[in-house]
Amino acid sequence: MKACGLIVEYNPFHNGHLHHIKEAKESSGADCMIAVMSGSFLQRGEPAIIDKFHRTQIALQSGVDIVLELPYPYAVQSSDNFAAGSVHTLHEIGVSSINFGSESGDISHFITSYNTFKEKETVYKQQLESQLDQGVSFPEASRFAYQQIGLTNGTMDLAKPNNILGFSYVKTILENNLPIEPLTIERTNSGYHDQTITSSIASATSIRKALLENAAITSKIAESIPTETYRQLEQYKSEATTWHTWEKYFPLVHYRVMTMTLKELSAINGVDEGLEYRIKKTAKEATSFTAWIEAIKTKRYTWTRLQRMFVHILTNTTKTDMKDMLASSSVPYIRLLGLNQTGRSYINQIRKQLDVPIIGKLSRNIHPMSAIEEKVSNAYYSILPPRPKNQLRKQEIQPPIQI
Amino acid sequence: MKACGLIVEYNPFHNGHLHHIKEAKESSGADCMIAVMSGSFLQRGEPAIIDKFHRTQIALQSGVDIVLELPYPYAVQSSDNFAAGSVHTLHEIGVSSINFGSESGDISHFITSYNTFKEKETVYKQQLESQLDQGVSFPEASRFAYQQIGLTNGTMDLAKPNNILGFSYVKTILENNLPIEPLTIERTNSGYHDQTITSSIASATSIRKALLENAAITSKIAESIPTETYRQLEQYKSEATTWHTWEKYFPLVHYRVMTMTLKELSAINGVDEGLEYRIKKTAKEATSFTAWIEAIKTKRYTWTRLQRMFVHILTNTTKTDMKDMLASSSVPYIRLLGLNQTGRSYINQIRKQLDVPIIGKLSRNIHPMSAIEEKVSNAYYSILPPRPKNQLRKQEIQPPIQI
Repeated sequence: MKACGLIVEYNPFHNGHLHHIKEAKESSGADCMIAVMSGSFLQRGEPAIIDKFHRTQIALQSGVDIVLELPYPYAVQSSDNFAAGSVHTLHEIGVSSINFGSESGDISHFITSYNTFKEKETVYKQQLESQLDQGVSFPEASRFAYQQIGLTNGTMDLAKPNNILGFSYVKTILENNLPIEPLTIERTNSGYHDQTITSSIASATSIRKALLENAAITSKIAESIPTETYRQLEQYKSEATTWHTWEKYFPLVHYRVMTMTLKELSAINGVDEGLEYRIKKTAKEATSFTAWIEAIKTKRYTWTRLQRMFVHILTNTTKTDMKDMLASSSVPYIRLLGLNQTGRSYINQIRKQLDVPIIGKLSRNIHPMSAIEEKVSNAYYSILPPRPKNQLRKQEIQPPIQI
Repeated sequence: MKACGLIVEYNPFHNGHLHHIKEAKESSGADCMIAVMSGSFLQRGEPAIIDKFHRTQIALQSGVDIVLELPYPYAVQSSDNFAAGSVHTLHEIGVSSINFGSESGDISHFITSYNTFKEKETVYKQQLESQLDQGVSFPEASRFAYQQIGLTNGTMDLAKPNNILGFSYVKTILENNLPIEPLTIERTNSGYHDQTITSSIASATSIRKALLENAAITSKIAESIPTETYRQLEQYKSEATTWHTWEKYFPLVHYRVMTMTLKELSAINGVDEGLEYRIKKTAKEATSFTAWIEAIKTKRYTWTRLQRMFVHILTNTTKTDMKDMLASSSVPYIRLLGLNQTGRSYINQIRKQLDVPIIGKLSRNIHPMSAIEEKVSNAYYSILPPRPKNQLRKQEIQPPIQI
């Protein structure tokens, strides 16, 4: 059986994602579609609007055969680490291709850019360092450095954040000589970061925004998502009493910071360069999560970077935890979130060839990373009413969803 | 000027307390009444129903001239440490007597008991150890040991918890040869731990219970408290939107436990003898604070001990913190919560003779203990709406209340 990999967050799953799965399946000629998905917290340092099990359910109803969890230390990360974790996970499960959405929809643009990048990598690195030294944020410094080596114009503009991820996937594959064919299809939704829903193919950002602004799922939202997403969003909200947003976590993360010592705070991953003083100082006046980040933000610390740091504070993930987890060159295990009959056949077929174990039910004793993963999940569900009132909190230790 | 000390919690201040102040002033012939009061969290491991500043305000309107804060490491403690911290604080500020309420109202009973205790201390200690070794809780083991040396009958029954505190005050004074006269007056309220209000002199327990069971302050409650208590309770609730109860802290302390490692949990003060496993295990099913303690409780771990432990978890107070703070033989500073004109005159008069500094406005840099005190206060106010909506959170760093 031939497998094609997708790297996803599905926050939430929309019509554009449905289109992507269909196209990717067709162009790859794969028998089995495997998605590696961020779990509770996402690449940009935000809680997923509904939990990973409900998002898995949607994916399985929409053409994905196997859903794997992208481990926390790779998920809440900048594009390089995010890409490394995703691509390595898909490599371990044996995909022969990876398909991602892009603006150009032409993989040769990414490969050409990668070759240029390799040629001029020294210049890139010098420019990057010098910008960082001047206190510029990483994304901006990186954009500037790409510009200096001619990668911000023409067919493949690396100044655009949505191209960076695709570029990082291709880079991971080529640099590690992985036997994976990179593929891309053109994004059908107008803008990756569109703020409003303008058609039935809308961005996840605009759908989330509409969901949170409206008490119910409006007809406009409903038109941009498959029925299964509608169903799971509704069901989750009725069980959980809420969708997950940063503001819901504000009382918890604020309490946490207010009872930490400066030393404890500085041990948390992402709290670098004396940021602990700034966090503590601004905490006293913070009235909301948004206002708090606004108060901390500087030229060097972008919103996304600060959000990621707050995820690590919330989940109590230290620099040591992160270092230990990222120490190995690949992922320590593959965690199954869900699969269907095709997925089961595929796994039965390749199980013996795997270099790393497949984990169904998570237990903290499997690996240091699984203990962290359990804490992360606990933090994610902390805003929900306590069990047994709310069974959702129990989900982390459930076996994979099978349909 | 002559000063008389009181050891109080005022949770909340009631008619019995008013009576105590009047009697203590009269019997001591003091010019200045000084109360040392537990701050945010109390001896039995509970949050104070309203904050220390509002309780200070009431005390100052009711005959107390100076209110000092009993530091956290002494306040949330068993009777021995609680008594040591209170008596030493009052000694440092120069009181010549300490007056406490008791059932017998006769100080000679306490002194006789102390003499008996000193005579038979070896037997007491042996009996205590042997009970503890059998897994009996400390209060029960201690009661049994007192019984063995004949201190649980007659005029001074040390099996009664309300006698234990008085006995501990007297013991601290006599063992340290402090130049303080211990005095006692007979308690006028029927029972220290009465659950219901039966007269205008009611127990704090029954008043708290009635307050929390009723949305408003009923006329029955109003009859058992001075007008100033009524006023401050009302005002606090309107500002804070709530009174403080353990259940309000449940989401925070539960979140905290769910994101701690076993190692981190076992570093917290009071988490002894592998209790961390029990706390973690029961956390998964806990639906309320009360249910959680019920699930952890054993013969050895009493409700009060577990409540104190949870205060330390909530405030992130480690064994090391506690050891560092309790290392000195006396208190490192005296913290003023409030004073009136008489109090100011008294302090001006004795200031130069003090062995330890008097602190008005708290700053974390004064002493390791003040940093802990700030964290504790932050934890206490964490259940309130964020500033600037709620100015109460700012109180910890305010100067003493002056009337």
